[in-house]
Amino acid sequence: MSRIAYVNGQYVRHADAAVHVEDRGYQFADGVYEVCEVWQGKIVDMPRHLDRLHRSLNELRIDWPMARSAVEFVIRQVIRRNRVVNGLVYIQVTRGVAKRDHFFPAEDVAPSIVVTAKPTSPAASQVQAEKGIAVVSYPENRWPRVDIKTIALLPNVLAKQHAKENGGKEAWYIDADGNVTEGGSTNAWIVTKEGALVTRPAENGILRGITRAVVLDLVQKEGLTFDERPFSLAEAFEAKEAFVTAASTLVMPVTRIDGKIIGNGHPGSVATRLRELFHTATDLQTA
Amino acid sequence: MSRIAYVNGQYVRHADAAVHVEDRGYQFADGVYEVCEVWQGKIVDMPRHLDRLHRSLNELRIDWPMARSAVEFVIRQVIRRNRVVNGLVYIQVTRGVAKRDHFFPAEDVAPSIVVTAKPTSPAASQVQAEKGIAVVSYPENRWPRVDIKTIALLPNVLAKQHAKENGGKEAWYIDADGNVTEGGSTNAWIVTKEGALVTRPAENGILRGITRAVVLDLVQKEGLTFDERPFSLAEAFEAKEAFVTAASTLVMPVTRIDGKIIGNGHPGSVATRLRELFHTATDLQTA
Repeated sequence: MSRIAYVNGQYVRHADAAVHVEDRGYQFADGVYEVCEVWQGKIVDMPRHLDRLHRSLNELRIDWPMARSAVEFVIRQVIRRNRVVNGLVYIQVTRGVAKRDHFFPAEDVAPSIVVTAKPTSPAASQVQAEKGIAVVSYPENRWPRVDIKTIALLPNVLAKQHAKENGGKEAWYIDADGNVTEGGSTNAWIVTKEGALVTRPAENGILRGITRAVVLDLVQKEGLTFDERPFSLAEAFEAKEAFVTAASTLVMPVTRIDGKIIGNGHPGSVATRLRELFHTATDLQTA
Repeated sequence: MSRIAYVNGQYVRHADAAVHVEDRGYQFADGVYEVCEVWQGKIVDMPRHLDRLHRSLNELRIDWPMARSAVEFVIRQVIRRNRVVNGLVYIQVTRGVAKRDHFFPAEDVAPSIVVTAKPTSPAASQVQAEKGIAVVSYPENRWPRVDIKTIALLPNVLAKQHAKENGGKEAWYIDADGNVTEGGSTNAWIVTKEGALVTRPAENGILRGITRAVVLDLVQKEGLTFDERPFSLAEAFEAKEAFVTAASTLVMPVTRIDGKIIGNGHPGSVATRLRELFHTATDLQTA
């Protein structure tokens, strides 16, 4: 349970954590966010997440709401005040509160910041990883700037809900060429029959996932065969393994795509190994 | 100035009007909205706006937060309590507050509703209409469901900001075929050299504007020549007149597009006439 949230300078009871109705995050989706894993009392890859937050803010020309070091301090405080040992910390920054008008407000409007944290169950996630998840394909229909981690997530919500209603835990977006771009809230991977790991390059219509980057580091360290290129849904159906990556799921094996069994129908050895090794490749800081 | 807002069952001071940080409108842009004009103490076209709200909610499978008649009551109350004679009333409905998760929350989560109102200056708008506005073209980059009036407006914000920084008041989206789809927050129209009014059909990648529909009624009533079809940016450059329509601007003449002077550089007679007649074709209800 979340007890305490940080909202624009104050630690408040989570139940009372509120923003003004004219916060541009509420009326225009004019903001960005990050989700970091908390693992065994450590914050996983905070520098990489804050680097990406910096990039997202920069792309939208939103200022940091306070110094980056202050944001780090607040993240630690929120984790501690919620006594989260294993869980997620969520950071959202918007362009701030202003009288409703599409145009950016005057420069003296301060960005809003919200930080929340909640515990999650590594055991439950592990049970799921040992079974694998099903994914459901969905036509890519988002704007081209999915490289920015914005809160304009309604398309992702609808894609994931479609997946859920069709027996899946995740949606895989398929572009006009029949290639998988990414998941609704994860990056998408396959392992080919020849044993090569494949994931789409991050320059190309996907979010530059932090967990994805860590797995790429691991792949290199382990000397695995790797090919950073688009792959099609048809290729995924024939793959030996498939999996998704995100801070909230880590490396999560995929055992069904659109109802078709992938590989032998069980989590693959490559995905399982990468999941086991995952935290050895991360930056871990005490919360 | 806005004094009072309605938020989830309560009338509160506008300054205190707040929603929870886990309102899905704030974290996922999972909501819809309407803006109605208030003109001389009357609410303009409330039934049409609430019909469209109904359609938007339906498309996203969000329930009405309360009976439609109760929403009408609240709209009137908010207008009165803010003493708005000429202005805008804003209604936003989201999927409600739930622990962050892309999937729709359990069915017992109540949708959130916010209603605000603010005065605007008809005189200032009229001054602008007598001068005309400049628009700036922008590549269409939104998802295909722009027919739903969602709060996922970040792409529109960026398009309009681009227009502003290039001397415009509005952005005109240009699709892959070189045709104008609509404005960042308005519908787009031209009057050809031959005197025919042209606007894109509402089936095709645009929002079904209420003001647009009223103007279409007027056009019929006045017996003007009319052609509901896509038009290109090139055609707009050569047009006799251009204008935009929205509840917030009514009929607003466009006198420059991408720096090029349209017609004689002054508001056209058709646009000016439609603006004058506008309220004669609307449904007006006492606030």
